Amino acid sequence: MIKKIGVLTSGGDAPGMNCAVRAVVRTCLSHDIEVFGIYDGFAGLHAGKIEQLDRHSVSDVINRGGTFLGSARFPEFKEESIRKEAIKQLEKVGIEALIVIGGDGSYMGALKLSEMGYPCIGLPGTIDNDIAGTDFTIGFMTCLNTIVDAVDRLRDTSSSHNRISIVEMMGRYCGDLTLWAAIAGGSEYVIVPEKEFDEEKLIKQIQLGEEKGKKHAIVAITEHITDVNALAKRIQERTKRETRATILGHIQRGGSPMAFDRILASRMGSYAVDILMAGKSARCVGIKSGEMVDHDIVECLTEMKRPFRQDLYNLSDVLY
Amino acid sequence: MIKKIGVLTSGGDAPGMNCAVRAVVRTCLSHDIEVFGIYDGFAGLHAGKIEQLDRHSVSDVINRGGTFLGSARFPEFKEESIRKEAIKQLEKVGIEALIVIGGDGSYMGALKLSEMGYPCIGLPGTIDNDIAGTDFTIGFMTCLNTIVDAVDRLRDTSSSHNRISIVEMMGRYCGDLTLWAAIAGGSEYVIVPEKEFDEEKLIKQIQLGEEKGKKHAIVAITEHITDVNALAKRIQERTKRETRATILGHIQRGGSPMAFDRILASRMGSYAVDILMAGKSARCVGIKSGEMVDHDIVECLTEMKRPFRQDLYNLSDVLY
Amino acid sequence: MIKKIGVLTSGGDAPGMNCAVRAVVRTCLSHDIEVFGIYDGFAGLHAGKIEQLDRHSVSDVINRGGTFLGSARFPEFKEESIRKEAIKQLEKVGIEALIVIGGDGSYMGALKLSEMGYPCIGLPGTIDNDIAGTDFTIGFMTCLNTIVDAVDRLRDTSSSHNRISIVEMMGRYCGDLTLWAAIAGGSEYVIVPEKEFDEEKLIKQIQLGEEKGKKHAIVAITEHITDVNALAKRIQERTKRETRATILGHIQRGGSPMAFDRILASRMGSYAVDILMAGKSARCVGIKSGEMVDHDIVECLTEMKRPFRQDLYNLSDVLY
Amino acid sequence: MIKKIGVLTSGGDAPGMNCAVRAVVRTCLSHDIEVFGIYDGFAGLHAGKIEQLDRHSVSDVINRGGTFLGSARFPEFKEESIRKEAIKQLEKVGIEALIVIGGDGSYMGALKLSEMGYPCIGLPGTIDNDIAGTDFTIGFMTCLNTIVDAVDRLRDTSSSHNRISIVEMMGRYCGDLTLWAAIAGGSEYVIVPEKEFDEEKLIKQIQLGEEKGKKHAIVAITEHITDVNALAKRIQERTKRETRATILGHIQRGGSPMAFDRILASRMGSYAVDILMAGKSARCVGIKSGEMVDHDIVECLTEMKRPFRQDLYNLSDVLY
Repeated sequence: MIKKIGVLTSGGDAPGMNCAVRAVVRTCLSHDIEVFGIYDGFAGLHAGKIEQLDRHSVSDVINRGGTFLGSARFPEFKEESIRKEAIKQLEKVGIEALIVIGGDGSYMGALKLSEMGYPCIGLPGTIDNDIAGTDFTIGFMTCLNTIVDAVDRLRDTSSSHNRISIVEMMGRYCGDLTLWAAIAGGSEYVIVPEKEFDEEKLIKQIQLGEEKGKKHAIVAITEHITDVNALAKRIQERTKRETRATILGHIQRGGSPMAFDRILASRMGSYAVDILMAGKSARCVGIKSGEMVDHDIVECLTEMKRPFRQDLYNLSDVLY
Repeated sequence: MIKKIGVLTSGGDAPGMNCAVRAVVRTCLSHDIEVFGIYDGFAGLHAGKIEQLDRHSVSDVINRGGTFLGSARFPEFKEESIRKEAIKQLEKVGIEALIVIGGDGSYMGALKLSEMGYPCIGLPGTIDNDIAGTDFTIGFMTCLNTIVDAVDRLRDTSSSHNRISIVEMMGRYCGDLTLWAAIAGGSEYVIVPEKEFDEEKLIKQIQLGEEKGKKHAIVAITEHITDVNALAKRIQERTKRETRATILGHIQRGGSPMAFDRILASRMGSYAVDILMAGKSARCVGIKSGEMVDHDIVECLTEMKRPFRQDLYNLSDVLY
Repeated sequence: MIKKIGVLTSGGDAPGMNCAVRAVVRTCLSHDIEVFGIYDGFAGLHAGKIEQLDRHSVSDVINRGGTFLGSARFPEFKEESIRKEAIKQLEKVGIEALIVIGGDGSYMGALKLSEMGYPCIGLPGTIDNDIAGTDFTIGFMTCLNTIVDAVDRLRDTSSSHNRISIVEMMGRYCGDLTLWAAIAGGSEYVIVPEKEFDEEKLIKQIQLGEEKGKKHAIVAITEHITDVNALAKRIQERTKRETRATILGHIQRGGSPMAFDRILASRMGSYAVDILMAGKSARCVGIKSGEMVDHDIVECLTEMKRPFRQDLYNLSDVLY
Repeated sequence: MIKKIGVLTSGGDAPGMNCAVRAVVRTCLSHDIEVFGIYDGFAGLHAGKIEQLDRHSVSDVINRGGTFLGSARFPEFKEESIRKEAIKQLEKVGIEALIVIGGDGSYMGALKLSEMGYPCIGLPGTIDNDIAGTDFTIGFMTCLNTIVDAVDRLRDTSSSHNRISIVEMMGRYCGDLTLWAAIAGGSEYVIVPEKEFDEEKLIKQIQLGEEKGKKHAIVAITEHITDVNALAKRIQERTKRETRATILGHIQRGGSPMAFDRILASRMGSYAVDILMAGKSARCVGIKSGEMVDHDIVECLTEMKRPFRQDLYNLSDVLY
């Protein structure tokens, strides 16, 4: 029977990470398992920044954004020697298994530790919703609402001025945030990494919309596709309509988690402890059709694919 | 091929109803179907309050709470003669099918019209999440966030004063709002209609919690279970701790819909038009495992059951 | 030169109290004054719950509701013997002066300590805006926004149902919250403690409004004026219109402070340290015409009056 | 006695403009004055986009961002011939006086019309708080809260990653938004147009802060001072700390107005009608020490100065 579990957050922070840590802590304590927080991700693990957590360590974190455990970039973790030292830090305290909350880079770290014989469980903590094996990642829904709130504000001002607004959203190479935000925010045009970007077509559509009487328009676009400020200038030149770009940036990461993420994170954190107690390792946790599931972390990283929601993409077309 | 569709909202209003109407309108227009809004629910239908809707009728409703079509109580609709007159109103305009957005009372109205040969589709629009055949109803997630925001505020003040707070939440005879809000809000105690309420046990738990060092507590309870103000007095007498009850009331219904509800409602509204075009009738729309589904409305009302989420109930216990 | 200052929060908690404490702490530290937090108000002072605070004690409180120092009722503080013991607790640590953040009850405590020769400064921390000598109390503006947000939600649902909504707001015997919220929330009727309540006149106005085509109405009323649930029933009987009462309750106290309160509290906390350094005592801090001021605390409690804003009351009439 | 009044919004939109228009309309109607909305600012005035407004025109605008009257750039209004044509449009409808809600450009338009003998009143509607003769402009407080909410989010993520965040805020050549947001948001460093920007000093302060144990920092900076993305790169190079810039952009303009702005705008709109009725012209409205005031619009534009809040600038230093 497992006696000591460690937990860390890694990669970009996401709203709800604190709820996941809280659930890990409280579930451990309800089973008389000791639980340890590792601060500042894999970097902190390697440096031995480890502290035991009790009920009160997490008594006031459920509604707080970010991660109180901290996070950090640590490319050095790719080296086996570094990972060996990290495992030593865990063994020094007697921690028998590790729960890693983060995105695919964090999963890779968890996988590597698992391959070296150290039991790890991965939890999908990222706003980008770009992890296979789960319908939703922790933080996605909160980030989506932050974006939609920003789009609502932009619509206020762009409709007051009959203006075109281009809004660049996060998501890395996954269009989910953009696509969902476009439907929820009533954006007229959606540009996602899963679909080739045809600037000429976009401009023609905007011109067509204007002819039909559309007096303002919002273009939702995922980051890393094009320089949106330059795009705004070109659209303005072609359409003779005032056009502004807004890069939402890091405000998308923060904020108090929505109920959806708090519950998702709580369930996942608790489930991770359950499967560790059941002797599982090298698994990643997900939600499928409303139920907790777990997958082989190798399969998740190499074989499983997130399908593109063509149905939502089509819907965004029908609605505007 | 269907040429004219009507849409109405009925029963208690729910955030997202406007998005559903908007999706009905825009989907109809994209298929060259004329679409008519019926104002003030079945009462307005009977009174002939019917107006054609165009793109602009719904151009500014996506982020607005309530229902711009209005709603009203109308028990008279149970009488067949009244319904016959209502159908005449529809026939006068040439409306061939009706989309009804509301709770189970509204479904019953839609069913009755269907039984009289008039094609109807039901959409689950209620904050209570108490409709079978769908994982989520339109408005549930927004209402949940409104409640959790209120609970966050109550926690601020009850922790400042080491006080016990009882929070009465909506939900009618369904504990979903309470149970989800308890997990998301970090409530210490959960009382839902699906579980027998044992006041003595609750008080003992609070006393036990106090002995363990808990300095404040939040009790989440569904409406219609007990008089929460009287309960607060009894708890205060027994525990000698300041205890306050808050009845959240109708603020739970309003507010701009969250992204989740906007998307859910948009998908359902569009899907309802699709299945009408496919010749279906007497169906109700739902979401299952992330996908749109439809069921026989009779089965939904008589045979299908919403399962109680015992797993979440247990989780709420593990976490606090 | 003063070397050690204590700070406590007392009475009902108000958003922004944490900002005031933070400003006291940081201003002290910038002048090399040691600063001590007294937990749980005068009760904690009497019990000697005193801890030194440093930069980090307040590094994460600026956006948090409630008061991290806690508060408590403590009627025993009226007894001189109790206060003598309290002063001993302060002297034991060497604290030379005390900053008390709270409402008029807290001011009275500060005054009594001052009369016994112990230097005290009062800061107006209460949502009720019922303290003389200041245009605004800490917490008023945040509470006002919380109320207006709730009223916005109620308007969504009452306009959807053509319903009359009665909203009971906090404020004790001061109508400011109600009056300001009525103007900001677009309430049709305003009932405040400063004006005699004429139920018959209210009902007649509602009936008149209906004749003019008003389909829904919101009545804003301060607590302690009448039983709003009973009032709702009587209005419904007389007007034959669905009427619902909502008691906003303790959700009005919580929540992250708005910018206005954060700045007001920061200025007041810093100013309190400044005047203690200047050798003042038995003063209370206020804001007048945008500038910090301080008054004799006796005068504030006995002679100064807050004027009723008849201009705003008239405005609420003109606007609806 | 005046019989017909026109109202328009001009320049950048600001939250609360709708409340001001609503107050103009309702105050006019309560005095049996007819009121006309001019759409799309001075451009719409010149084009004759004028419509009579009634109670219902403004029955649902109090909580909506932007301006339902629209706004537009119209440099042509500097030409006298254009203004003559505009006045003809007003005379055609019989409008005897015009209320202009906007920033200093809009004031200039109002002044020019006044000089041509056409009665105008200016209302300060701009988020920038850069209008003389008033303590606050309509929209400033809401914009401030939007910024502070964004800064709260950035603090979540920058503290999770021990990162430096640079946040560029609006304000044109006025540092009020930045200065107030820095105090309310707990920013470590404040850069405003009223103070010379010394990049070297900023970097040294950041390095000093780090030595003292500050693990993350937020730099608040007004627009138009420097290229913040380039600044971020230079800071990162020098401090070896991850540094990110966020340009908040147009999200700062939108959103439902806070209670403060709704009340300010309501008072100003109503007051503008009052002074028109009293026969005044070429005046601009302000709030001073909580009371409505009006000034000669020429003086406001040419002689009156907004003082820089050195006290707040110093406070921001003491607090961090």
